Amino acid sequence: MWLGARLDALPTPALAVDRATARRNAERMQERCRALGLRLRPHVKTHKTLEGGALATGGTRRGIAVSTLAEARFFADGGFDDILLAYPLPAGRLEECAELAQRLDAFQVLLDSPGALQRLRQRPLAGGKRWLVWLKLDCGNGRAGVRPTDPGALPLARAIAEEAPEEVTLLGIYAHCGNTYGCSGVPAIQAIARATTAAVLDFVAAHPVPEMAELTEVHPGNYIFYDLQQTLLGSCQPQDVAIRVLTRVVGHYPHRNQLLVDAGWTALSLHGWAQSPAGCAAVEGHPQLRLAGLTQEHGLLEPTGGQLDFGRFPVGTVLALVPFHACATAAMHPVYYVHEEGEVVALWHPVRGW
Amino acid sequence: MWLGARLDALPTPALAVDRATARRNAERMQERCRALGLRLRPHVKTHKTLEGGALATGGTRRGIAVSTLAEARFFADGGFDDILLAYPLPAGRLEECAELAQRLDAFQVLLDSPGALQRLRQRPLAGGKRWLVWLKLDCGNGRAGVRPTDPGALPLARAIAEEAPEEVTLLGIYAHCGNTYGCSGVPAIQAIARATTAAVLDFVAAHPVPEMAELTEVHPGNYIFYDLQQTLLGSCQPQDVAIRVLTRVVGHYPHRNQLLVDAGWTALSLHGWAQSPAGCAAVEGHPQLRLAGLTQEHGLLEPTGGQLDFGRFPVGTVLALVPFHACATAAMHPVYYVHEEGEVVALWHPVRGW
Repeated sequence: MWLGARLDALPTPALAVDRATARRNAERMQERCRALGLRLRPHVKTHKTLEGGALATGGTRRGIAVSTLAEARFFADGGFDDILLAYPLPAGRLEECAELAQRLDAFQVLLDSPGALQRLRQRPLAGGKRWLVWLKLDCGNGRAGVRPTDPGALPLARAIAEEAPEEVTLLGIYAHCGNTYGCSGVPAIQAIARATTAAVLDFVAAHPVPEMAELTEVHPGNYIFYDLQQTLLGSCQPQDVAIRVLTRVVGHYPHRNQLLVDAGWTALSLHGWAQSPAGCAAVEGHPQLRLAGLTQEHGLLEPTGGQLDFGRFPVGTVLALVPFHACATAAMHPVYYVHEEGEVVALWHPVRGW
Repeated sequence: MWLGARLDALPTPALAVDRATARRNAERMQERCRALGLRLRPHVKTHKTLEGGALATGGTRRGIAVSTLAEARFFADGGFDDILLAYPLPAGRLEECAELAQRLDAFQVLLDSPGALQRLRQRPLAGGKRWLVWLKLDCGNGRAGVRPTDPGALPLARAIAEEAPEEVTLLGIYAHCGNTYGCSGVPAIQAIARATTAAVLDFVAAHPVPEMAELTEVHPGNYIFYDLQQTLLGSCQPQDVAIRVLTRVVGHYPHRNQLLVDAGWTALSLHGWAQSPAGCAAVEGHPQLRLAGLTQEHGLLEPTGGQLDFGRFPVGTVLALVPFHACATAAMHPVYYVHEEGEVVALWHPVRGW
């Protein structure tokens, strides 16, 4: 019912996506990967929408990474194929993986332990299908993955590649530089990316499995939307951030020098609270304002210094918040209002759950 | 499809609700209010489900508080009536309020400014209906509300009560002790509750509006589920917490002395990260474990000291997490798995959005 509406007519809080910016972000990443000779397998976990996946794949709907089985099924149902479940093989949910592997041309999984390989071997696929497997390396991120220096790493790679070629195929080596989120500045991020790449390639060079010959794919996700965190990290410029949480002023509290707005943590999440000087969001066009508090449905804005000019912000004024973490903020919204120059042109409905 | 399943067969992460505990919590609050001579108007924002609302109202489906217009419509559609939108009157969404006021026997709103009263006056209801209004006081919480010591507070109460009795009815005075969340221990909480009650009653005593004669209603919400925070605050005992986030072990990382589980911040939220020694959740039955990290779909568990006995936690083991903040955790789940002694007996679907 909101197609054709202006953004400032929407019920608030609302997640607004600037389609032109998101498309430009998608195209730039495609160009960058082409120039580097790398395949782009966009991760869809930030937006979790078919429309965002179509943008990110340049319309092919082929070659994505997902973070949950619910996403895998949602995108498969939406006509996507060549889907990587970028998550340790879920023990107890192997049948759901097998179902996806049977119905898709390519459903890929990650392994980081001999036990997971055994579980795949105990559930062979039918009809000549093979399990398509990436070996997950932990190159310093400290979450999932086997360390390249672990004495079991090379035997595991060899086992995946050679133990049962009729049942299991090794696609390559996978690493995630999640530790870059702790960086301040581009040089530190580049250093981690360089170290991760070197660790992967060192591992590959030490082992003769041909599937691991070179760096072939990258799986970025956040870049379609970007956010305040990525801006602070130097991954994007402020004008590249495609999303805003729209909110309205709902009260004036001069004795506290604060405005009340109708965006709480159900609209923003609490991400960024401790990390960013702006709190969980920046107020677009009003750098003198900061989020001073967030409860379930309320946000408190106050000036970083001096007295607030309440006359500039009448009750009902719509403000646009630039969220700290796009993945976390998007996860709070059942619908995204997609606009071109302020006019709603589409509603995107993300998948949720597991 | 999960009705009749055992909890440990569910896909994880999953939000499990122990129905007997939730029912006991609901009944105890009803008894407590009866004993105090207070009407209970349960707030439904924690669970946001028709089933939870029915439990909390003892099956009457009459007399609830909601935090969003989406909740108000969802509960109205589900047969509830006598609904208070416990939120500052939303400028720009008055038509939605008017629609609810027309279709329900009683739809109540909060005001804390003369401007809001003016907005109601500019949109009179049809068919002999009146706007039903609570005056919101801020008794120290520092969010919405007029301070009882504000010179405008009494004139505002009088204006609501007397300015246009054919259009607007003053129901009473409303205050929220949200500042108790900052307390450690029951005496501090009781002190705030006592001060808030005194401030409301002082205000009432200074003013002859009969609708404000006494403390008449209380609007608790979290108590149906309770959580780790309420346990730490002393509002409940550990055995009163009705919800768990079920998660499975998905990896062993002995070199880091850590287990990986499939509950990240999409399953728990980040609430409690900085506030609780247990992080965002406690691991039921394993007080020696703590959450050491949370990303979108991953949680890291480690011992509070010593070496982890990985043999006790094979990959696939189901663990139950007691979340820090029930409202925030429930908001992450599209479905709740309601069980009796570990067997799923119902699926509850909460409303989301605004």
